[in-house]
Amino acid sequence: MNNRLKQISDYIEQNNLDAVIITVPRHVYYLTGFASDPHERFLGLILPRGEEPFLLVPALDAEAAAQASTVQRIHTHSDTDSAYEVLRGLLPASLGSIGIETEHWTVSRFEELKSCIGVSRFSSVDELLRDMRVIKSEDEIGLMKDAVTLVEEVLRRGLQKVAVGVTEIELVAELEFQMKKLGAQSPSFSTIVLTGPASALPHGVPGTRKISRGDLLLFDLGVYLNGYASDITRTFAVGEVSEEQRRIYNAVLAGNEAAIQAVRPDVTCASVDAAARNRIEAGGYGTYFNHRLGHGLGIDVHEYPSVHGRNEALLKAGMTFTIEPGVYVPGVGGVRIEDDVLVTAGGVEVLTSFPKQLTVLGD
Amino acid sequence: MNNRLKQISDYIEQNNLDAVIITVPRHVYYLTGFASDPHERFLGLILPRGEEPFLLVPALDAEAAAQASTVQRIHTHSDTDSAYEVLRGLLPASLGSIGIETEHWTVSRFEELKSCIGVSRFSSVDELLRDMRVIKSEDEIGLMKDAVTLVEEVLRRGLQKVAVGVTEIELVAELEFQMKKLGAQSPSFSTIVLTGPASALPHGVPGTRKISRGDLLLFDLGVYLNGYASDITRTFAVGEVSEEQRRIYNAVLAGNEAAIQAVRPDVTCASVDAAARNRIEAGGYGTYFNHRLGHGLGIDVHEYPSVHGRNEALLKAGMTFTIEPGVYVPGVGGVRIEDDVLVTAGGVEVLTSFPKQLTVLGD
Repeated sequence: MNNRLKQISDYIEQNNLDAVIITVPRHVYYLTGFASDPHERFLGLILPRGEEPFLLVPALDAEAAAQASTVQRIHTHSDTDSAYEVLRGLLPASLGSIGIETEHWTVSRFEELKSCIGVSRFSSVDELLRDMRVIKSEDEIGLMKDAVTLVEEVLRRGLQKVAVGVTEIELVAELEFQMKKLGAQSPSFSTIVLTGPASALPHGVPGTRKISRGDLLLFDLGVYLNGYASDITRTFAVGEVSEEQRRIYNAVLAGNEAAIQAVRPDVTCASVDAAARNRIEAGGYGTYFNHRLGHGLGIDVHEYPSVHGRNEALLKAGMTFTIEPGVYVPGVGGVRIEDDVLVTAGGVEVLTSFPKQLTVLGD
Repeated sequence: MNNRLKQISDYIEQNNLDAVIITVPRHVYYLTGFASDPHERFLGLILPRGEEPFLLVPALDAEAAAQASTVQRIHTHSDTDSAYEVLRGLLPASLGSIGIETEHWTVSRFEELKSCIGVSRFSSVDELLRDMRVIKSEDEIGLMKDAVTLVEEVLRRGLQKVAVGVTEIELVAELEFQMKKLGAQSPSFSTIVLTGPASALPHGVPGTRKISRGDLLLFDLGVYLNGYASDITRTFAVGEVSEEQRRIYNAVLAGNEAAIQAVRPDVTCASVDAAARNRIEAGGYGTYFNHRLGHGLGIDVHEYPSVHGRNEALLKAGMTFTIEPGVYVPGVGGVRIEDDVLVTAGGVEVLTSFPKQLTVLGD
């Protein structure tokens, strides 16, 4: 049994559960190495107390599961079976208490499960998995670095298409094309390119706005590769840069760097947010930095921890998250500079390496 | 109260419920005209028995809801409220039985709701809403026609970029760019372009394969516009067409047309599937048509009914679905021809109008 399964097994003992049923495909991947998208079909990793864990997979995935999974006890169900009936045959006749991902099961599916296998009580394992996933292993960090390397090459190639008159959505199309070409599984979120005053919209949607000389041009993009996400934002000036644009840029860059400097084990998320916010306030743009500093990054592009001013949770070595301060001045434009960072025993490792000095494109 | 809300109100009476709570954003849109994406925030349309229905929306959506919704009793909750606590204050002290979308609520959120408002029993309104949505109104059909018109223009423009040596993902990028340019909300699913032998993969993923002379070239794409989906597939020959390719194409086209001819009220889904399948079998390719004929289309790109050989449900005027027979010959290539159709009192109206005769591109 690998170490991750062992943690769940220990949790079962400590909480006196009869079984834990894991059904989030990304959790099954995390715990067994078997990645799949079962769509409507049932996929489960079941840990019955004191017994060997097993996978219950759609029959058509049996071969793939056997190849990829460290859990080698594999049962299958076909499209004409009820997966829950199959599961009943594999579990003790009546279960007192089970642990499930309550944030994943729908009421409808859970009612179906309960009517098939006798369950007296259930509790949530969402937090257990969240706490396990928040500390990344060396393997996971390696995969995240690959996803970062890929997205940085995408950004590099995308920049070659920047010219006055090109639209935001043309650049989005080029970036997403390069992602596919370079072998990304998918974008990790809907790619953002915003130019000129639109760059001041923190949730702006790329449109047919054309790049003009004098614009701030903001790129926010990420990819999934081998199940792990990257996420980077860089902002550029087009053709020329005004004094105000430079002031905004420098304030955000100072905030980004101050936050990175503040990262180390046993400091709070709030203190890292404050490090950036204080520098941006000192630059005179505090009121324009109107969102949290960053978010956890890993198997999900937005995961725990949330890095904001009221989160007193402590950073631990192995956590990965984004640092993405932004300043958005209506009518002028916005700057956001986002890096992906890893908390290390000694402080911080920045996973992203794309240059951050203010760059004027098309000059 | 509009007719849709009236149906839910009648359902409440007939089933002796104390309230129905609707939380799927597309259902709220369907029932009130208010479209929104509340992300993690609570959005609900609540119909308490014998009382005026009301919306409970995030405070930041209050203005948008007031403008768009036919339900004008609007309550709000802020990010510092518990939405369920606010809801408790708006409902009778204890509810016997409520109707909810059990396929949408997670166990975790539903437990939270139950701990806030007293609920003795709950039942599912999923089927009620499915049955309401399956019959489209004239307004809805108008919106679907707009989504079809847009995607057909996208396809027309995309075809202009077809040339020997161009890759599948370049065409995907161009099509999705044109969608945005023409004002689509989003693709209604991940755009598919497959060329040559890859066209024989019914779930193939576009890659860096280049178009070659002699290829079959398959496009499957759709858009969301004003909340409604379109979905079309057309297959072309590149440069030249072999006898076998022509035979496959003609078999699929005959199947597509036979299915369309079979559509009218009070025939089964299965019989429409059979009409296509029989023609394709007669053409000698029956074993290569290995999926259902089609799926319902509307607010969701895949909705009820599923048009397959074991669905004995009867078609009714106002239903909309796809007719998309396909033949996939390994090593040779695949052809799929997909139209969107509406069941009318007199038979059928085909919403898609893109030409279907075999067209040789780059000739």
